[in-house]
Amino acid sequence: MKKINPSLPKGTKDFGTVEMRKRNYLFDVFKELFNVFGFNSIQTPSMENMEILNGKYGDEGDKLIFRVLNSGNFMDGVNKIDSFKINELKNKISKKGLRYDLTVPLARYVSMNRDKITLPFKRYQIQPVWRADRPQRGRFREFVQCDVDYIGTRSVVCEAEILELVNEFFGRIKYKDFDIRLNNRKILQGISEVLKFEDKFEEFCILIDKIDKIGIDKFKEELKKKRFTPKTIEQIDIVFQIKGDNETKIQFLEKYLKNSIIGTDGLNEIKSLSKYNNNFIFELKLARGLSYYTSTIFEVIPKNNKIGSLCGGGRYDNLTEIFGYKNISGIGISFGIERIIDIMDNENLFPNRLSDSTVLVAYLGSEFILDSIKISQFLRKNNVNVDLYSDNNKLKKQLQYANNNKIPYVIIVGEEEIESKEYTLKNMNTGKQEKLNLKKILDRVSQ
Amino acid sequence: MKKINPSLPKGTKDFGTVEMRKRNYLFDVFKELFNVFGFNSIQTPSMENMEILNGKYGDEGDKLIFRVLNSGNFMDGVNKIDSFKINELKNKISKKGLRYDLTVPLARYVSMNRDKITLPFKRYQIQPVWRADRPQRGRFREFVQCDVDYIGTRSVVCEAEILELVNEFFGRIKYKDFDIRLNNRKILQGISEVLKFEDKFEEFCILIDKIDKIGIDKFKEELKKKRFTPKTIEQIDIVFQIKGDNETKIQFLEKYLKNSIIGTDGLNEIKSLSKYNNNFIFELKLARGLSYYTSTIFEVIPKNNKIGSLCGGGRYDNLTEIFGYKNISGIGISFGIERIIDIMDNENLFPNRLSDSTVLVAYLGSEFILDSIKISQFLRKNNVNVDLYSDNNKLKKQLQYANNNKIPYVIIVGEEEIESKEYTLKNMNTGKQEKLNLKKILDRVSQ
Repeated sequence: MKKINPSLPKGTKDFGTVEMRKRNYLFDVFKELFNVFGFNSIQTPSMENMEILNGKYGDEGDKLIFRVLNSGNFMDGVNKIDSFKINELKNKISKKGLRYDLTVPLARYVSMNRDKITLPFKRYQIQPVWRADRPQRGRFREFVQCDVDYIGTRSVVCEAEILELVNEFFGRIKYKDFDIRLNNRKILQGISEVLKFEDKFEEFCILIDKIDKIGIDKFKEELKKKRFTPKTIEQIDIVFQIKGDNETKIQFLEKYLKNSIIGTDGLNEIKSLSKYNNNFIFELKLARGLSYYTSTIFEVIPKNNKIGSLCGGGRYDNLTEIFGYKNISGIGISFGIERIIDIMDNENLFPNRLSDSTVLVAYLGSEFILDSIKISQFLRKNNVNVDLYSDNNKLKKQLQYANNNKIPYVIIVGEEEIESKEYTLKNMNTGKQEKLNLKKILDRVSQ
Repeated sequence: MKKINPSLPKGTKDFGTVEMRKRNYLFDVFKELFNVFGFNSIQTPSMENMEILNGKYGDEGDKLIFRVLNSGNFMDGVNKIDSFKINELKNKISKKGLRYDLTVPLARYVSMNRDKITLPFKRYQIQPVWRADRPQRGRFREFVQCDVDYIGTRSVVCEAEILELVNEFFGRIKYKDFDIRLNNRKILQGISEVLKFEDKFEEFCILIDKIDKIGIDKFKEELKKKRFTPKTIEQIDIVFQIKGDNETKIQFLEKYLKNSIIGTDGLNEIKSLSKYNNNFIFELKLARGLSYYTSTIFEVIPKNNKIGSLCGGGRYDNLTEIFGYKNISGIGISFGIERIIDIMDNENLFPNRLSDSTVLVAYLGSEFILDSIKISQFLRKNNVNVDLYSDNNKLKKQLQYANNNKIPYVIIVGEEEIESKEYTLKNMNTGKQEKLNLKKILDRVSQ
């Protein structure tokens, strides 16, 4: 047998038992939360036809899609002349790609199932996505996205509910130190109308999205490179520097945008949202990168941590149009699992006892296995997570196993114990040992 | 915008909300069960390097692996002469493949992390796998596997625990009509020694695996084609026809295999398993397809249903050897989610109320939205799954929405209700309406 040195593909990682305990805990929090807010789960295939994915993520994004080679004779129909025009060849030999996000598959799903689903459609989706990005610390080529969307409604109740869901989520994981920043693309568009640079609106948004990284001075330099006039840059700077609470900013903008229909429209959306939920910071210097957003946009930023946004999203009006399903507005939020786990690790927010097993049943010889099995059965019937040691090993080794696996209790089964029907229960944290009958053991470990 | 007709790749499917409710229910049953039995969760990446996957699933299996095209200029280093030797080309342009099962990635994981994990290592893994199989009814190119394995122990306690886990699983989903069939490859090897066809043992196992489909007569014909002598075929037939309970079969084989060391060894394994768990049918005509099994093998078959096995597994001794980690025995079981869902559907085993939302909060005008939000908050704080209707639509439309989404209760919020603090609660199944205060509504919907 030829020996293989086992390795992982670049940018991917295994999640061991310790990491999976945290992840499963977090996924359970999400699922419960989403259900409490009336969102239902769907799942879409990992592979999508390339025509679904192509062109949805910009030129840069398109290059980062992992392509799946056609099955069978993938070179069928490729002639020698084709074969070195790399993009043509790619399109011929790989007609499928791996999911790049959960939003485009959702748009595809809704468009395909428009006759079956009832609008407004509320779904959550927790699935991995793949991007052939340059791997970096904390950025992997496969990562889980956790998305919640409303489809088929323009009601601002959605915005209010999603903000409430965000608050409730961070409340449940007991994280307090965050801001919800919110803006509306229509307001930015209004500003571009007032300052007469409508033609450069897309570039403007892309640059706003970088302010957090590059700072406001570099932002202004970049505007200059994009041929914004010094006067326009100064005017942008002025409007971006309005201070005060949301109410003050709204009052200022009411006058500022009074001649822009779209700007006023965006401002009205923020005003009616405020009636239902005003737990956000109205922040003009927020644009969100994705080009499909058309009005409300928001993100959650840790106050004392530079790791970037923990979740973000916004409203989009034309996502399903390319699939022939028009006039369907939606709003969504995407949670970044990895960053949230980072934060929870740093702030010690995971519950102390995230060990899957509560008890290890250990035994002092193979003649006690049958009794050990029965003890395990009794505890399991009472919903205790029980690990029964499998090998007839020295007790020391069995205790070590409990220790390594962070199992808090060990029951030791030997001759004396079986005769007296009282078993040794060892608390692995305190080291304390007691002789107890099964009922008392059950009480103790169920606490 | 060019319109795209949305479609799915061949052999893949979306899971809508109704299907996902069932799947999530089943996944939760599995996770709880696995925890109760002391198994911990791990996850491995969807992509593996091809050297990990190649040659592990036989020639047929290798062809069914989905290959991922290298990122960037995948034709780099390919010259024209290579380009039409299809297999060489494939190996150059796609160095990764999608996971084909969960067992080979487990072996890779254990080998790579041998210094970190404590043996025996008990893990469960619930993740999708991909196979470029010809799609058929109920067979998809992406499907979820649900695996439990012990690694690094030869103890028969593992076999006993896995049989117990199987029983407990079917107990939890309330399915009774199944048999656990169990055999030991060493016994089959012993038979091949006694009947002197050791050289044809692999072919023998592959044919046994087909008996369920082709029947015993066709099996004998196939043996003949593989040049088994008529005398050998007759002798195989005789040993395969032993009748009686496990004990009778064991007694017969004790004599039959007395000169085969390996056969006797296999028989002893079954005997010691019986001391701890004898809830199985000892079935000689069972081999399991996968070539890596080396001793115990088992499967669960519905008694009244021809859909094949619901789960199956066995013990393997050399799985990690190819990755340089020797003498590591393991035993695993894999549950087939799709077939189990089929059975549960047919036998009506899913709980009646698998709707995610318990209550829809509906309102008679946008002026009641703020109160509706507060009512939703109150119920959610008390862990009720609440869907708040998002649009200011006619009540009829809101009730239709509840109906389509199978939401059992609707709270109707209007002027009268807000004044009296008693809200209309409509039971969507009976049609009954009551006016109740919030506390009583909570009691009613929490039942």
